[in-house]
Amino acid sequence: MPEARLPFDQLVSLLTSIFRKHGTSDAVAAVLAHNCASAQRDGSDSHGVFRIPGYLSTLASGWVDGHARPEVEDRAPGFVAVDAGNGFAQPALEAGRELLLDKARHNGIALMAIRNSHHFAALWPDVEPFASEGLVALAMVNSMACVVPAGGRKPLFGTNPISFAAPRAGHEPLVFDLATSAIAHGDVQIAAKEGKKLPEGYGVDADGNPTCDPEKVLNGGALLPFGGYKGSALSMMVELMAAALTGGNFSFEFDWSGHPGAKTPWTGELLIVIDPACGAGSDFAERTETLVQAMSDAGQQRQPGDRRYRQRAEAQRLGVALKEDDLTYLRGLVD
Amino acid sequence: MPEARLPFDQLVSLLTSIFRKHGTSDAVAAVLAHNCASAQRDGSDSHGVFRIPGYLSTLASGWVDGHARPEVEDRAPGFVAVDAGNGFAQPALEAGRELLLDKARHNGIALMAIRNSHHFAALWPDVEPFASEGLVALAMVNSMACVVPAGGRKPLFGTNPISFAAPRAGHEPLVFDLATSAIAHGDVQIAAKEGKKLPEGYGVDADGNPTCDPEKVLNGGALLPFGGYKGSALSMMVELMAAALTGGNFSFEFDWSGHPGAKTPWTGELLIVIDPACGAGSDFAERTETLVQAMSDAGQQRQPGDRRYRQRAEAQRLGVALKEDDLTYLRGLVD
Repeated sequence: MPEARLPFDQLVSLLTSIFRKHGTSDAVAAVLAHNCASAQRDGSDSHGVFRIPGYLSTLASGWVDGHARPEVEDRAPGFVAVDAGNGFAQPALEAGRELLLDKARHNGIALMAIRNSHHFAALWPDVEPFASEGLVALAMVNSMACVVPAGGRKPLFGTNPISFAAPRAGHEPLVFDLATSAIAHGDVQIAAKEGKKLPEGYGVDADGNPTCDPEKVLNGGALLPFGGYKGSALSMMVELMAAALTGGNFSFEFDWSGHPGAKTPWTGELLIVIDPACGAGSDFAERTETLVQAMSDAGQQRQPGDRRYRQRAEAQRLGVALKEDDLTYLRGLVD
Repeated sequence: MPEARLPFDQLVSLLTSIFRKHGTSDAVAAVLAHNCASAQRDGSDSHGVFRIPGYLSTLASGWVDGHARPEVEDRAPGFVAVDAGNGFAQPALEAGRELLLDKARHNGIALMAIRNSHHFAALWPDVEPFASEGLVALAMVNSMACVVPAGGRKPLFGTNPISFAAPRAGHEPLVFDLATSAIAHGDVQIAAKEGKKLPEGYGVDADGNPTCDPEKVLNGGALLPFGGYKGSALSMMVELMAAALTGGNFSFEFDWSGHPGAKTPWTGELLIVIDPACGAGSDFAERTETLVQAMSDAGQQRQPGDRRYRQRAEAQRLGVALKEDDLTYLRGLVD
């Protein structure tokens, strides 16, 4: 498919117009547009403009409030809570960010508990900016029931990603963003289209029996956690941290059947931010660099986040890459 | 092998005498004995009295200071640092515990960064007591280079466990303790003895090539992280949190070649403790219970920690189970 290139700011601007026209406030549009354009810029294709139809059908369904104003609550010296008001998680994070930063710098560690929120994006954009300011950040978000707990037969957990960012001397931050499911739903769809089998331990059929057939996973089946019972334990932790602790819904608790077209999980998100300047010994960012060098010397060719930064640099030179058809579709949404 | 049963307090008392006689202070002996006896009581065989020879050879080698007095440093309102003084991590945690609890309750979240420490035990005993007091706790400890990072060929990470504990209404806390390696070294040894192959993705040979032969893993080879690149990313996070942030050594940084018999990794440990009472909505422990019920309804038969609590209850009725030979060995150490 022919590829278009658009300067990042123009893509943000186009997406902002789309969100505003399709049911969000100016403030929400600005945050979501920047988030979505950043994913597209960095080559996170599954979280870039690919997500626009899902955002719009969700807004049209009345499932999420595109005009929600997050309410920031100062719960304790290290604890910020945000009620997203049935809006998106990213504007809620934005609303509480300065307070969270102040608390983390003053106390050495602080957390933000977002509830009543919808997260439909990659998780790394939520943590990377903290590491760019020299802080360590850990985020967890639960989603919608599609993952069977280890030893179980019915889906319960979401894909429940964990994302982590740490500053790195002389380089962009070290950032990972990993789903606790063995595979993403999109990749199961691709395997089905290509007639390929899934590796063992990735999915179950409608009866909860293990299967390598992607069609069976898609037709009433479900995903499995990555790494067996260990990934399952981590997914459980994400439910407890992102939902129980914040006051959000577990991934199996919300019912969107009255909102056809709704795609965004109504749950919660937890962020923990640490100021490594309170730690001991050598400069933290230098220590990160020591570890990265050692990983490289041990033969690990690519560090977490490397691909994103490479794509980002290319996008800064040439513009953000988009399929021509996608760009035409996006422009049509504001005509 | 015939089994002996010893009341928990008598086992603690015996182990305390052993530690004192073999090079620790009274204070250190008390903490290590309770820790080791608890693991034995709960059926964590690989971290029970099985570890005593390793503790003693390490103490005899001069690698660790059994008389170290941990120094607690109040770095920030939410940040406790402890210099373990080249002693064990558990007495360091004990020394800072009250300050950490106060900080967590006052701020909603707090951390303890232990450095210059040796951790040779299970990690769950470090977090479970916080959950018993209604708090959520997360701990990470790095160890010694024996795990190859994803895509690499040389060992670099430790087995780097992550442990998590959360209160559960009407039940003992929900606790998991998982190594980020695909398998424990002990299990590789067992497979080798029994002439069994390892599953794919568990180990590499001395050249860094994947192998299912346990002998090749043991003879100059190494382990792989669990769950491929995802487990590797988590293991990297443990290095950054437990070592870089605390001021401890990375798993590949210490050189114990001058101390034959040394078995304990000289690294660091990080604990994060959260007070869920600062969170929103329903009572956290009730929410944990809701999730556990849902996991059970989804077919997950056993919850994290279940086996330990069952063994603990049995030990409370019948005494702690030990092999007769082990008990004879232990008693011989104080004669």
